[in-house]
Amino acid sequence: MTLQLTLIGIGTGNPEHLTLQAIRAMNAQDLILIPHKGTGKNDLAQLRHEICAEVLTNPATRIIEFELPVRNEATQNYRKRVDDWHDEIAAIWQSAIISNGAPQNVALLVWGDPSLYDSTLRIASRLMPTPEITVIPGITSLQTLTAAHATVLNEIGAPFIVTTGRRLRDEGWPPGVDTVAVMLDAGAAFEAIAPEGIYIWWGAYVGMKEQIVIEGPLIDVAGEITKVRARARNAHGWIMDIYLLKKL
Amino acid sequence: MTLQLTLIGIGTGNPEHLTLQAIRAMNAQDLILIPHKGTGKNDLAQLRHEICAEVLTNPATRIIEFELPVRNEATQNYRKRVDDWHDEIAAIWQSAIISNGAPQNVALLVWGDPSLYDSTLRIASRLMPTPEITVIPGITSLQTLTAAHATVLNEIGAPFIVTTGRRLRDEGWPPGVDTVAVMLDAGAAFEAIAPEGIYIWWGAYVGMKEQIVIEGPLIDVAGEITKVRARARNAHGWIMDIYLLKKL
Repeated sequence: MTLQLTLIGIGTGNPEHLTLQAIRAMNAQDLILIPHKGTGKNDLAQLRHEICAEVLTNPATRIIEFELPVRNEATQNYRKRVDDWHDEIAAIWQSAIISNGAPQNVALLVWGDPSLYDSTLRIASRLMPTPEITVIPGITSLQTLTAAHATVLNEIGAPFIVTTGRRLRDEGWPPGVDTVAVMLDAGAAFEAIAPEGIYIWWGAYVGMKEQIVIEGPLIDVAGEITKVRARARNAHGWIMDIYLLKKL
Repeated sequence: MTLQLTLIGIGTGNPEHLTLQAIRAMNAQDLILIPHKGTGKNDLAQLRHEICAEVLTNPATRIIEFELPVRNEATQNYRKRVDDWHDEIAAIWQSAIISNGAPQNVALLVWGDPSLYDSTLRIASRLMPTPEITVIPGITSLQTLTAAHATVLNEIGAPFIVTTGRRLRDEGWPPGVDTVAVMLDAGAAFEAIAPEGIYIWWGAYVGMKEQIVIEGPLIDVAGEITKVRARARNAHGWIMDIYLLKKL
């Protein structure tokens, strides 16, 4: 009996981001695994519980928390560090599934969408025997950002790139595009580029009730964003932010 | 009394792509404007009606069709052709709103998400007086494609570009990235690039019941995709496809 593993995109913290498809999939599960984060991001585990409480109507669906391990920062190589961590998480899922009676239908709730800067698919592919995987798309933080600003990702017929804060900081403005969306920024990488002629649409906690958005010419608002970001990070103990940059 | 215009992302044709937020927003409207496409894409207008029928519970919400004009192909300049067309659509919305009693809450249902290769925001910004615009994010065809293939957009920490078929055909593989998502392809632009070492995840009508997906090394499956694409286009009278390319 092959494990049916469903990865359900749940959007970015607004319980109303759930699609009808996600709600139906959640109610079709025997078991939903939710990570318990011990590092200040308990808001997120809590939000997952609230989302389940709001839409689960199937009394047979159980919700089980698992302890998310921490990455071993002693491992020098970044890729190996991430790979080891994913191996460890897969082993924890496996044991959580077995210790809960090895049910056939198991789901994980994925922040945003399982395709976008998320490791759930990579971890799932490590399970043995190989499960049958179904993916339910979810609203991404990118779309929540553009919706909050009522703006568009791309200019007419033009491309855009999605990259990370680390890349923007290390490599500068990517070649061949006038539009850059930046995710996974550990800290204000937009300060590393020349601000002239660039407009920024920035958001933190997009979709959640804590949402903050700022937009303007980068040269005018970079300092304000950096300040607001630091203050919010202090207040909440964590921050997730995202932004769109355009050469105008 | 400022017009409250809500642009509601409705996903890619699967009525279950609707979010709870979209359903709530639809039911808060006085008027929902739906384009009537006279050019073979009536399936899409029909789908919008079905979606409304399934989730509208507010008897006060009226649904009005408007005739979508065709672009004036005699205008040589592409940008001017598109701009003129958007002006014309804005005028049609304006008159549809006025002739229906100029209600305060009006919505448009946007295929996918209003931020991604969609003109609704640009057209809405032409309305006079300027409306207050609210955007509700929706599931994009990009996410529906990756979900159908149970694959990811980005490699770990790596960027990806989203571009058009025309760009891929005219400019070749974009610089600085190993992952390219292609939208708005008028016809198999993937045939214009050297296929060695490239993997493709292709989909047509993603999210709809007509969905077709093919994946494989580009060198092995390009011919098959081109054939399947032409056959499907003939059968339906129209096609919308999208694909993800990766250098492996």
